[in-house]
Amino acid sequence: MPAPEACLLLIGSELTEGRLTDKNGPFLAAQLSQMGFQLGEIRILPDDSAKLRSAMQEALHSRAELILSSGGLGHTRDDLTATLWAEILEDKLTVSESLLNHLQATLRERGISKLPYIERYALAPTRGKFFLNPVGLAPALYWDLHTKVICALPGPPAELQSIWHVHLKPYLQNRFSLKPPLEHTIKTTGITESRLSELIASWEANLPVSIHLAYNPSWEGVSLHLRASPEIDRELFFNQIEKLRALLKPYIYTEGAGSLAECIIKKLRERGLTLAVAESCTGGHITASVVNVAGASDVLKGGVVAYANSTKIDLLGVVPEVLQTEGAVSESTALQMAEGVRKALHAHVGVATTGIAGPTGGSAEKPVGTVWIGIATPIETYAKRFVFSGGREVVIQRATATALSLLWQALGKNS
Amino acid sequence: MPAPEACLLLIGSELTEGRLTDKNGPFLAAQLSQMGFQLGEIRILPDDSAKLRSAMQEALHSRAELILSSGGLGHTRDDLTATLWAEILEDKLTVSESLLNHLQATLRERGISKLPYIERYALAPTRGKFFLNPVGLAPALYWDLHTKVICALPGPPAELQSIWHVHLKPYLQNRFSLKPPLEHTIKTTGITESRLSELIASWEANLPVSIHLAYNPSWEGVSLHLRASPEIDRELFFNQIEKLRALLKPYIYTEGAGSLAECIIKKLRERGLTLAVAESCTGGHITASVVNVAGASDVLKGGVVAYANSTKIDLLGVVPEVLQTEGAVSESTALQMAEGVRKALHAHVGVATTGIAGPTGGSAEKPVGTVWIGIATPIETYAKRFVFSGGREVVIQRATATALSLLWQALGKNS
Repeated sequence: MPAPEACLLLIGSELTEGRLTDKNGPFLAAQLSQMGFQLGEIRILPDDSAKLRSAMQEALHSRAELILSSGGLGHTRDDLTATLWAEILEDKLTVSESLLNHLQATLRERGISKLPYIERYALAPTRGKFFLNPVGLAPALYWDLHTKVICALPGPPAELQSIWHVHLKPYLQNRFSLKPPLEHTIKTTGITESRLSELIASWEANLPVSIHLAYNPSWEGVSLHLRASPEIDRELFFNQIEKLRALLKPYIYTEGAGSLAECIIKKLRERGLTLAVAESCTGGHITASVVNVAGASDVLKGGVVAYANSTKIDLLGVVPEVLQTEGAVSESTALQMAEGVRKALHAHVGVATTGIAGPTGGSAEKPVGTVWIGIATPIETYAKRFVFSGGREVVIQRATATALSLLWQALGKNS
Repeated sequence: MPAPEACLLLIGSELTEGRLTDKNGPFLAAQLSQMGFQLGEIRILPDDSAKLRSAMQEALHSRAELILSSGGLGHTRDDLTATLWAEILEDKLTVSESLLNHLQATLRERGISKLPYIERYALAPTRGKFFLNPVGLAPALYWDLHTKVICALPGPPAELQSIWHVHLKPYLQNRFSLKPPLEHTIKTTGITESRLSELIASWEANLPVSIHLAYNPSWEGVSLHLRASPEIDRELFFNQIEKLRALLKPYIYTEGAGSLAECIIKKLRERGLTLAVAESCTGGHITASVVNVAGASDVLKGGVVAYANSTKIDLLGVVPEVLQTEGAVSESTALQMAEGVRKALHAHVGVATTGIAGPTGGSAEKPVGTVWIGIATPIETYAKRFVFSGGREVVIQRATATALSLLWQALGKNS
């Protein structure tokens, strides 16, 4: 039995005019795919009744068994979604007393006594139903036509995601016979995409066509995603993963959902080690990546963003003569920063960056993109030089990701 | 004359399966809209020849005068775009000697002697033409059918954007009679969306319907975007902006493209002031936002991420008794951190955050989301308390944005 097909209609002129970047498409696409739906298409449409009407009609007459729309459920004249779905499905929208009561209670909780347009949000379909919005006003409206399900979700991502998790996902799991695909992700760091590709070339050549392999490169490393239809033999799938794992072992930082920073924190915690960060060109980005992880306070002592030379000297103990003779962007400075922050913050491990993010400040000897990354552990201190291409923000991102990668590799060595 | 309509087809199963978030749609939507195209639709499609063929046919028979596709131009069996466009347009793809020579020269420059599939990238349409790819291998293929233009662009955003700026945008500007819409953005900070909405309510009620107003709220503040068709009277448009500007004056940080951090750096530079940042819960995010701006080194001395109490004491001179009696998340700590980093880094202005980002660490008195933000200038030192809702990352983002907002407001006061 093939996976049931789904179709998304993302509605809003702010999306087609490029004023807002859609977040609902990627969210719903990933969720639907993991559940076992096959997403046939995502259509992004302006607030234009003719275009919306025809896209809705087409979806209705397509093979899609699930049609989700997002957006256009507000109270302004641009918000056409509910009216159009009702028109196309030959239904009527009328004020639901229970919905109105719920909305008025919500307003009271927020200390709002009256909202002139609140009845607009209490319109419910006669032949369809609705899901309450746990974090906003607009409910989701849905119709089960037996051959297909249509659901109109509000556009704000927080509202859409809340309705999804609380109501829609459980409803769909119950309503459809879904078989989730077999999926597995292996995340590597410290190896380039081309080297990795060489390393697994013969494995990849022998991979059964029923297993789909995708490379997802990022600055932190290359993730490999394997995916197969639920019909294939599970043992075949997991045997292939085992072979792949053996080939890539030294580079794998996780096979789950965690980020590189999360894995670093986990490793530090397991080993009872603390971390301190000294950043020049990355300007706080490394520390910020670590702090994003819940529980970072267990292992992170803190960091110093030593942008000015005086800060490098005063807070990190970099020797002024080194800055004069070798420059701020040098191996010695990176070493002294890493060692200096380790000592100043009483941490076990120090990591440091110093480089030229651009657009100015480069020279023939040290072009824009030159970055030294230093690592100091209780055992050893060393630094590596990189030259990253790309604009200022890309150089900063690549330096940040590479520092995390080196840190992860250093923690491996310390075992 | 109405704006010519455009249509985008974004191709790739990684997009419909939610493994990759599309960046080409938002980029092209904004670019086309600014040029004076009207984007009728964005369709995101899997690597499925039947679905692609029918979407291409529909686009071809729609009102769209410009059809752009992205993705599917690589050398794997999943890459169907070029073949399908050629089939539908009744054209043939043959190896172009000039293209092949160019590609081989590109490979030599990169130190690659041979690529088995390079001829795949040298396929050019017989009735169409191609644009060279300045940063990758796959050229863009295009056809001018007189009534419409079709262009197939490669999927990697860096390649697509490079071809857009170097080749496609100039070509379209020459090929179509475009009238860009009148557009203006006013960015505010330090005022909530609802207060702002009240403040401009009577102005908004009198806004001619030909001028479209959009609120774009972010954690840093609310941006207002005004847009009108090129047909309307310019004076009418700019008169409305002048009235709006007068209403919002104290809150406007820019009417251009700059970020709040950029405007802060500009203000600091104009006044000859330097900045130092002390972060606890924001963990480097404020400093990182400032460092992202080119030229930050002129005004940023650096920062201290004082995550552990020992770091707050050692590097920022926070009094240990204060941490014991009032706690790390307190007004006194925020004040001492802001003043401490200002002194330690010899800067004119200090900004500090200390708070509970969660998910753990909250209490009845100091719930998760409690953040104190301190500001120290040569004239005054003060701190404000906030309680931000949302998960850990959202609390961090909101605290970062609010600190930048307070910093901007403080710089206004210092004039």
